Amino acid sequence: MDNERFTRGSEKLKEVDGHGGEQVIASLKGTAPDLGKYIIEFAFGDIYCREGLSLQEREIITITSLLTSGGCEPQLEVHINGALNVGIPPEKVIETFIQCIPYTGFPRVLNAVSVAKRVFAEKKGLHAKTHRTRTIRSAGSRSKDAK
Amino acid sequence: MDNERFTRGSEKLKEVDGHGGEQVIASLKGTAPDLGKYIIEFAFGDIYCREGLSLQEREIITITSLLTSGGCEPQLEVHINGALNVGIPPEKVIETFIQCIPYTGFPRVLNAVSVAKRVFAEKKGLHAKTHRTRTIRSAGSRSKDAK
Amino acid sequence: MDNERFTRGSEKLKEVDGHGGEQVIASLKGTAPDLGKYIIEFAFGDIYCREGLSLQEREIITITSLLTSGGCEPQLEVHINGALNVGIPPEKVIETFIQCIPYTGFPRVLNAVSVAKRVFAEKKGLHAKTHRTRTIRSAGSRSKDAK
Amino acid sequence: MDNERFTRGSEKLKEVDGHGGEQVIASLKGTAPDLGKYIIEFAFGDIYCREGLSLQEREIITITSLLTSGGCEPQLEVHINGALNVGIPPEKVIETFIQCIPYTGFPRVLNAVSVAKRVFAEKKGLHAKTHRTRTIRSAGSRSKDAK
Amino acid sequence: MDNERFTRGSEKLKEVDGHGGEQVIASLKGTAPDLGKYIIEFAFGDIYCREGLSLQEREIITITSLLTSGGCEPQLEVHINGALNVGIPPEKVIETFIQCIPYTGFPRVLNAVSVAKRVFAEKKGLHAKTHRTRTIRSAGSRSKDAK
Amino acid sequence: MDNERFTRGSEKLKEVDGHGGEQVIASLKGTAPDLGKYIIEFAFGDIYCREGLSLQEREIITITSLLTSGGCEPQLEVHINGALNVGIPPEKVIETFIQCIPYTGFPRVLNAVSVAKRVFAEKKGLHAKTHRTRTIRSAGSRSKDAK
Repeated sequence: MDNERFTRGSEKLKEVDGHGGEQVIASLKGTAPDLGKYIIEFAFGDIYCREGLSLQEREIITITSLLTSGGCEPQLEVHINGALNVGIPPEKVIETFIQCIPYTGFPRVLNAVSVAKRVFAEKKGLHAKTHRTRTIRSAGSRSKDAK
Repeated sequence: MDNERFTRGSEKLKEVDGHGGEQVIASLKGTAPDLGKYIIEFAFGDIYCREGLSLQEREIITITSLLTSGGCEPQLEVHINGALNVGIPPEKVIETFIQCIPYTGFPRVLNAVSVAKRVFAEKKGLHAKTHRTRTIRSAGSRSKDAK
Repeated sequence: MDNERFTRGSEKLKEVDGHGGEQVIASLKGTAPDLGKYIIEFAFGDIYCREGLSLQEREIITITSLLTSGGCEPQLEVHINGALNVGIPPEKVIETFIQCIPYTGFPRVLNAVSVAKRVFAEKKGLHAKTHRTRTIRSAGSRSKDAK
Repeated sequence: MDNERFTRGSEKLKEVDGHGGEQVIASLKGTAPDLGKYIIEFAFGDIYCREGLSLQEREIITITSLLTSGGCEPQLEVHINGALNVGIPPEKVIETFIQCIPYTGFPRVLNAVSVAKRVFAEKKGLHAKTHRTRTIRSAGSRSKDAK
Repeated sequence: MDNERFTRGSEKLKEVDGHGGEQVIASLKGTAPDLGKYIIEFAFGDIYCREGLSLQEREIITITSLLTSGGCEPQLEVHINGALNVGIPPEKVIETFIQCIPYTGFPRVLNAVSVAKRVFAEKKGLHAKTHRTRTIRSAGSRSKDAK
Repeated sequence: MDNERFTRGSEKLKEVDGHGGEQVIASLKGTAPDLGKYIIEFAFGDIYCREGLSLQEREIITITSLLTSGGCEPQLEVHINGALNVGIPPEKVIETFIQCIPYTGFPRVLNAVSVAKRVFAEKKGLHAKTHRTRTIRSAGSRSKDAK
């Protein structure tokens, strides 16, 4: 049944794109809910769940394709986050973009690096804030679960 | 010195694209020799020789970018061959193309698969012929180097 | 005479794109007035005035082409408004975008839906405001022409 | 169940693209059978079977998107045939392409018209041949069903 | 009157694209005659007849835009011929393509150089043949106008 | 040695893109310094330093390619500034964009003109401010170096 594809896709979307992916789907609720459904069922339930490539390889292919298409900065932002989520280090994201130069020219690569820069900064900011919050909280409450 | 980049690039081009890459460079001799020089020095001498990604990963990125650009069938042919040369199995080439569907739509993927089909068939034909030739030759000459 | 094409085109532009189209032309006055002239004469005076397709069909073709090109968000905004102006209901605009998924992939469709969402909201806001203003005005002035 | 999407999609593919569509799927059997499966299930079973647009409208959107993407001549050929199959007259196919000029420029339109010219000629040739065959056949067999 | 734009455009088309341009227009007669009319009236009658750029500059812009779009090889062929017709030497055509590498990457440039190679060879072949014909003719007729 | 290409490229970048180019390179320092290095060495050290085209011709080719690619507004901004820096008058920048209409359609040209408008206004504002500042400064200090 299709519900199976939807359930499988939702889990995969969460695994790859985390919060960013869920926000995209949520933002489509009022205007184009079926578009969100197809992204979950087809892109994530069908394609991302296939065998033959690791999740890291799939994200490298995805960010390469988005960089090359041009004008997909919002999707690049989601999937650079996705790349980090599945364990690709930031330097490898950048290295992927650099490998595209001979095939796309510099402008598309510059645009992708510019999105990556913002994503990396946000992650670091988030990490720093989380870390600080935890330090403060644990300082006050001697919480044991602070990592 | 630039000769170093050229030498390094020529070797890398040979390693990746084999005969197909050399033909591209040779075909440029009369009309645009410097274009061939830049492909060797910059694309292969600079970019392909970088660390941070394996050659297999670089070829997956390259064929993804070529598929997404559209209208790059001649270069796709060279680099699908390149992908096989560096040890990517045919099924993984196809899987890479399938991962692009959600980001490029079906037509670009159909075009890439159509090129891959031709490349795979030629390789098989070549392999069969080579194998046959060798069998015949070794049958006649008991050549020791037949693999 | 060319003036005829210009007059015919201006009227068609007004009919299709309304205020948005006139703003585009006005914004070109200082920097590239001839660009505005060609849009009116050629795009609207020649092409949009042809027979063989209804205005609704022409707008569906236009928003499909703009979605597929990518990076044409400002023009998409004008022509999603144009689509509504010539009587295409919002759901049909979205359905047009959904039909593009297999041919362009999800990212271009997501970008177009995101523009549509903004246009629909503005129209609704405008409608609500106009309605409110009219109610207030007619409440105060007992104006007969309030619709 | 997914079989339902496949069955529904197969029928829709046959209705729209006829022989051309089936050939595409058949040609994928050896190299990328799942690509054919997704075209049937997703493009035709999910998207083409939606309500909100007539089949003629869907084909107009499809050929517009293929023209605009560029480099999709094989798919344009299939879908110009598809447009004729669902009852769009040849002149309306050409009119659709002409409406794209202001948004894509002349080259993409020239390429699409060039494919259309070939498709129209083949259909006419086929029609002439079919007609001839029937005349001959009915001359010999007095077949009643000859139209 | 529009006839003026058509007459002006026809002359400009002849000046720039010569035989190749006229063939394109002629090939459209049966299927899309108005497309040919717009190319003459708008592209050549309006745009190419403007002041502010030399014809050589216009052709350099045109072949750059066609290279960058991708999938416009038939139009590139016509306009590489056009570039030569208005006096741009072959080396400058190639240099124009090389300047695009950083902005489009290598594949689009390789495709354009490959078209240029064919055009240059045809011109040379034509020239050689014309020269031979003339030599033969003048050998027989002692024609004075043989150059 | 490569240092030579870098030095040559840095000077050329400064000559063409001025402050804007240096800002791009500087912004890459933290995230992708090698991308900046390749832009300097390859795009400017290799390509822009070639003979066969004037710097003005190279900038016209560059802005044409960027307009045609689409989604390269940040790079267009840098290179419209570059075009002015090497002595191309604003009207010729606009005329270059107008020549692209038949090959790219109106939307890409509208986007490029919109960037040009902003760049021209900034230059004028800057010029006015510089002029004012200088007048004020030289009025107060009788500075000899005011130009």
